Amino acid sequence: MNRTRIIHAVLFVAVTQLVAASVVLASDPLPSWSDGAAKQSINAFVRLTTTRGGKSYIPPNERIAVFDNDGTLWSEQPMYFQLAFALDRVKALAPKHPEWKTQQPFKAVLEGDLKTVLAGGEHAILELVMATHAGNTTEEFSQIVTNWLATAKHPKTGRLYTDMVYQPMLELLAYLRANGFKTYIVSGGGIEFMRPWTEAIYGIPPEQVIGSSIKTRFEVRDGKPVLVRLPEINFIDDKAGKPVGINQHIGRRPIAAFGNSDGDLQMLQWTCAGKGPALCLYVHHTDGQREWAYDRKSSIGRLDKGLDEAKAKGWSVVDMKRDWKRIYPAEHK
Amino acid sequence: MNRTRIIHAVLFVAVTQLVAASVVLASDPLPSWSDGAAKQSINAFVRLTTTRGGKSYIPPNERIAVFDNDGTLWSEQPMYFQLAFALDRVKALAPKHPEWKTQQPFKAVLEGDLKTVLAGGEHAILELVMATHAGNTTEEFSQIVTNWLATAKHPKTGRLYTDMVYQPMLELLAYLRANGFKTYIVSGGGIEFMRPWTEAIYGIPPEQVIGSSIKTRFEVRDGKPVLVRLPEINFIDDKAGKPVGINQHIGRRPIAAFGNSDGDLQMLQWTCAGKGPALCLYVHHTDGQREWAYDRKSSIGRLDKGLDEAKAKGWSVVDMKRDWKRIYPAEHK
Repeated sequence: MNRTRIIHAVLFVAVTQLVAASVVLASDPLPSWSDGAAKQSINAFVRLTTTRGGKSYIPPNERIAVFDNDGTLWSEQPMYFQLAFALDRVKALAPKHPEWKTQQPFKAVLEGDLKTVLAGGEHAILELVMATHAGNTTEEFSQIVTNWLATAKHPKTGRLYTDMVYQPMLELLAYLRANGFKTYIVSGGGIEFMRPWTEAIYGIPPEQVIGSSIKTRFEVRDGKPVLVRLPEINFIDDKAGKPVGINQHIGRRPIAAFGNSDGDLQMLQWTCAGKGPALCLYVHHTDGQREWAYDRKSSIGRLDKGLDEAKAKGWSVVDMKRDWKRIYPAEHK
Repeated sequence: MNRTRIIHAVLFVAVTQLVAASVVLASDPLPSWSDGAAKQSINAFVRLTTTRGGKSYIPPNERIAVFDNDGTLWSEQPMYFQLAFALDRVKALAPKHPEWKTQQPFKAVLEGDLKTVLAGGEHAILELVMATHAGNTTEEFSQIVTNWLATAKHPKTGRLYTDMVYQPMLELLAYLRANGFKTYIVSGGGIEFMRPWTEAIYGIPPEQVIGSSIKTRFEVRDGKPVLVRLPEINFIDDKAGKPVGINQHIGRRPIAAFGNSDGDLQMLQWTCAGKGPALCLYVHHTDGQREWAYDRKSSIGRLDKGLDEAKAKGWSVVDMKRDWKRIYPAEHK
């Protein structure tokens, strides 16, 4: 290209980008959010922290936003989706485990008796997770998760699980990233259960996913290095574990945190106890028609202490029924 | 601004950027590297993986490069710099610990008897680290590290420790980042010992630092949430621990790995066993005059098995004496 053509080409690109930028500025980045206190607090926070020269300006490298996953970015009823995965894995692996026909909690799973499974409490769940999540390599497990998500359907909605992510939160993630925020997942769910799909679905790469984990061991098998997943807990990323996990992985205090349950309370406390401006927000499940309505008494995603603390500290609370025009991406307004 | 002024302004910015880009393209991004096999392999790898349309093209989100720290990004002789920090901390804390006057390995430290300290082996080192790295909050510890690095001088060079980073590696980090790579530290050193300064010195933010760690506990003290550092090992990020740490933090296999010792061997094996193109490089300490010369027999940074495997697998090996025109940033060529 000669010099004039280069200048023309650059001018074209520059003007195109300018036009694109104006369109972004002019349109609402959160179209699925009703105008209300929650949306206003988000907009005000982004403006406050990204306006150069303002006294609350935060440089981009410190704009860390953390999101719980279950119940905050996607649904979690009638059971955590990862538990549905574990139950399906028990069925898939059963032919190799004849002993499961008589051994709880596997027997109950194979008989479709969810009540007995859940009656076994945390111990039963842990046993199911270990039996279905360990014993393979990290690459094998990632493939198993990917295959399951491509076909498994939610028992109530009949949708793929990854179609049950919240449209308003997808918009919020994109809005924050467009404003220089680095978005993280900080979930009680399994880190390796989330990583195979969070980049495609949420735009969150694996290195920005923090979760619970089992231990792994490096081995060289037939000259090929692998990481083997062991039936041993490494880290539980829930409650007081969330600030610990954040510190381990990020090493810097977030300035925005989004959760939906008491399991997220310490993460919000940690985030909103920093020196500068911070945004703490709870998603409150209030829409029994379009999603589920639950809070203080629910065994899954209980929001009790958190609701009180949000009120006491002036944190934002999303009323899903009132604040969200749309729940899932495929849904019409 | 009216439309014409906007176009002029945009044109100015665009042309300026174009000129800047040409300058970058025209000049050598690795000026402290002698022309040789190591530099050529780096350049070839970057070209190969970033050329759009090429069959070895790697999208930016998968361009993960991992760097050991001690002996790879900064010096590690005559002892790991973090050990020098621990020894200084013992002296600083001694007034509060009268019992250390008679108790090993503290007694030896206070008497300046390094030989006895090191004769205590790993157990003695661990005891020193626990006594000096735990018992405070994450914020307090970060401040202690920052203060130490601002004043402590290396016993041989008289320089600040952060002035003993390798200029050629700073150039390599910047070169990779300019080509869309995400650069990580994966070190046997303490994660919280590195994070306070890696962003300023290496351009590597805390969330891209992986290292060994002790456990922390979330507590609310006087209404203020803190993370307390406990005298209990959480994770040792060395040898077979490095691929485990990489998987925990990044969740994706790197495509480039840089180390200098047998402690980095599994990290290089893991990186170079991926399906696509990958670069594995060892820094070989061969310059006894400008730095230190050591390899197969050294107790610090031993490079023995790694040297053999590099030869067998055709990995790149930097001969510091021959390949680096300059060692430290402040040094003249």
